[in-house]
Amino acid sequence: MATRAAAATLTAAMSSLLRRSASLRPQGLRVPRRVPPRRFVRHIASSTNEEAAARAAAATADTGGPTIFDKIISKEIPSSVVYEDDKVLAFRDINPQAPVHVLVIPKVRDGLTGLSKAEPRHVEILGHLLYAAKVVAEKEGVANGYRVVINNGAEGCQSVYHLHLHVLGGRQMEWPAG
Amino acid sequence: MATRAAAATLTAAMSSLLRRSASLRPQGLRVPRRVPPRRFVRHIASSTNEEAAARAAAATADTGGPTIFDKIISKEIPSSVVYEDDKVLAFRDINPQAPVHVLVIPKVRDGLTGLSKAEPRHVEILGHLLYAAKVVAEKEGVANGYRVVINNGAEGCQSVYHLHLHVLGGRQMEWPAG
Repeated sequence: MATRAAAATLTAAMSSLLRRSASLRPQGLRVPRRVPPRRFVRHIASSTNEEAAARAAAATADTGGPTIFDKIISKEIPSSVVYEDDKVLAFRDINPQAPVHVLVIPKVRDGLTGLSKAEPRHVEILGHLLYAAKVVAEKEGVANGYRVVINNGAEGCQSVYHLHLHVLGGRQMEWPAG
Repeated sequence: MATRAAAATLTAAMSSLLRRSASLRPQGLRVPRRVPPRRFVRHIASSTNEEAAARAAAATADTGGPTIFDKIISKEIPSSVVYEDDKVLAFRDINPQAPVHVLVIPKVRDGLTGLSKAEPRHVEILGHLLYAAKVVAEKEGVANGYRVVINNGAEGCQSVYHLHLHVLGGRQMEWPAG
């Protein structure tokens, strides 16, 4: 049973990885920036996918193993970089939920698989990540209207265990936030 | 016309303030912690209210005037405090969108009407706010599943111009985040 459960988890994780590795598509085929206005359809489909991906990811979260973001940081997997400095990298989400949807991550994870792992020594990088999110919003031209989101754990819909901030804008964000 | 517009803005702002001052209700009448499971009804009603409140609030955002949070910080308006230290205050949202819904704010606004006003000097307080959000989630027992949200500007659904982080948990958060 344990073997079967482990296999199922691995399959789910690989499925998630393959879905995310769509960024390997040829350069000519760019991810469209505009999201279709059919909110209801998008909402149901995205929610189901992300909640399932989050559950699968949570099963192996505590291993602290490498994630897809390591390959994005090392540029082994290409991404559309919006902002970068010595501490953080900001790149477009490959499954955008708004016209602007950028992820901001620390280049060195340093134990921050998620926000719940934050310790007092992380205060500086946490502040730098939030400040970088503001810079990203300015660069993307949505400084007057955007949302920053951090998902933690399965119920928070976290699907990659490397702390990341979502910067969402370019449309009216709704309430509640999911 | 300008006078009429100003009056309309004031009326909307006062309406928002009155709605929020529901925390003045007698101590015996507590806000229920559990949110009804009728997601669709809640979603539409909340979204409409908050988007309207956000538009009204944005009209006077640049004045940098006092907000309802000043009176919560000074304890002139009572709130249900979850966490407090010398720099931040965390208290329950009076319109909870999840079983756990706590706001984390800096005690001194220092120009931070919203995240978009952040400057490099704010990095330390930004980091402290995020760390406090993690502490709040632990204290509330949702460390393994929660979402942190920062709304900026009308399109981000920001309705109080004093930077605040929403900590939402205790139910499966959906995707996208609004």
